[in-house]
Amino acid sequence: MSRRRQIYEGKAKILYEGPEPGTLVQYFKDDATAFNAQKKGQIAGKGVLNNRISEHIFKSLATIGVPTHFMRRLNMREQLIRQVEIVPIEVIVRNVAAGTLSKRLGIEEGTQLPRTIIEYCYKNDELGDPMVADEHIACFGWASQDEMNDIADMAIRINDFMCGMFSGIGIRLVDFKLEFGRLFDGDFSRIILADEISPDSCRLWDMKSNKKLDKDRFRQDLGDVAEAYQEIARRLGLLTNEDG
Amino acid sequence: MSRRRQIYEGKAKILYEGPEPGTLVQYFKDDATAFNAQKKGQIAGKGVLNNRISEHIFKSLATIGVPTHFMRRLNMREQLIRQVEIVPIEVIVRNVAAGTLSKRLGIEEGTQLPRTIIEYCYKNDELGDPMVADEHIACFGWASQDEMNDIADMAIRINDFMCGMFSGIGIRLVDFKLEFGRLFDGDFSRIILADEISPDSCRLWDMKSNKKLDKDRFRQDLGDVAEAYQEIARRLGLLTNEDG
Ligand SMILES: Nc1ncnc2c1ncn2[C@@H]1O[C@H](COP(=O)(O)OP(=O)(O)O)[C@@H](O)[C@H]1O
Ligand SMILES: Nc1ncnc2c1ncn2[C@@H]1O[C@H](COP(=O)(O)OP(=O)(O)O)[C@@H](O)[C@H]1O
Ligand SMILES: [Mg+2]
Ligand SMILES: [Mg+2]
Repeated sequence: MSRRRQIYEGKAKILYEGPEPGTLVQYFKDDATAFNAQKKGQIAGKGVLNNRISEHIFKSLATIGVPTHFMRRLNMREQLIRQVEIVPIEVIVRNVAAGTLSKRLGIEEGTQLPRTIIEYCYKNDELGDPMVADEHIACFGWASQDEMNDIADMAIRINDFMCGMFSGIGIRLVDFKLEFGRLFDGDFSRIILADEISPDSCRLWDMKSNKKLDKDRFRQDLGDVAEAYQEIARRLGLLTNEDG
Repeated sequence: MSRRRQIYEGKAKILYEGPEPGTLVQYFKDDATAFNAQKKGQIAGKGVLNNRISEHIFKSLATIGVPTHFMRRLNMREQLIRQVEIVPIEVIVRNVAAGTLSKRLGIEEGTQLPRTIIEYCYKNDELGDPMVADEHIACFGWASQDEMNDIADMAIRINDFMCGMFSGIGIRLVDFKLEFGRLFDGDFSRIILADEISPDSCRLWDMKSNKKLDKDRFRQDLGDVAEAYQEIARRLGLLTNEDG
């Protein structure tokens, strides 16, 4: 890649101007943060693995008709994506109690939820990504009601698909975070899936041992962090041949 | 009142067994707490004023057809109420940004909200009454979807009425907290308004001076706390004649 303009550097990725208008290059770093960036570190090789894993999941979702920003992988750490206007809402889908749900509501980690829960958090690091309800989102115009309906529908479909995909490789999909964005087409826009889906943004537990195979190993200093990410890529069949 | 069995002692009120089955006596204390009971104190005469103010508002709401637990006032500090099974959800209605909304979402206190917001918190002191979404409420069975629909509808009607009532006496209804309960009738139950509505549970600002006339004076050590409660009772016409 020649010199490119950097658009944004986040906690885990860098966005560069893409080769054509309306495209971006998403570069995956090894940087890891937790607890609203109070804890910082590196996970060796994470960027390479997340690039591959996210590519795999986004491509799979496209096959069931979920529109995504993913265009193609460019190299080990980069993928070409469609530029969107990010909806400033983190969409959290939960099948099993863990993390902030367990802490906030006093529900033991690992408890199967009687129903899948979707939570929305306002994406704002300064405020610590506070949880909000549909009504706050409508009130402050962060997304329209139609957009929120589309987002909720897609989140459910993505959860159904990913539950199946991970159960097929012996992994329990505890919860995960999604981001969506507006893809403009003249005066109109539609909502598509953006950002990434990886062990950074999912809680993934081995079904037999309950071993955590995700960023909680970093958050909780459980060790073998890079190995957990590798294990996910391996089970997804992404480490067998480097098909570049 | 002769010796009665105490059912529950809370932060601001005591519940006693009522004279007939299905009734309770609600006794209003002068005790005040804030920040999940980390701050404790007394507001002289608060119990008497809140008993009168809550009576007035509940009776007024009954006239527009909002079903409530209120039966009649018994004396200065006590009222007879219908016993309900409390829905463990605090319903917060907000017209103007203040309190936790301002803090959590970084919106300046006093900002008029473009739309009224209803928030739900799980009533659990140990967990600090965490905010929840409709989905948590359904997931954990704290209330049914039908019940939540009834609650939201009533909350809007109560807000409409109270906005009018307070604007009539030069007061801005910033936000307030409601509790609802199930009144059983054989195998069936219906949702009615319970607990209290008073300067303990509302934010009330003088329209001209923006002076706070509610429990924030206690929370924020602004002084003249009892005087603020008196001012509300006075403007509502409740201090002119002691009509028992
Ligand atoms: N298709 C896209 N178009 C524009 N922005 C995107 C797209 N996909 C993801 N983003 C944004 O790019 C950033 C990715 O970098 P990341 O390190 O995750 O940042 P952050 O620290 O803000 O979470 C995020 O802010 C995300 O919202
Ligand atoms: N009609 C009712 N029937 C049964 N319980 C009620 C009724 N109205 C209010 N309550 C409950 O009685 C208690 C009132 O006392 P309070 O001091 O406010 O308690 P708390 O500290 O739990 O908020 C509250 O827990 C409230 O939920
Ligand atoms: Mg991110
Ligand atoms: Mg109370």
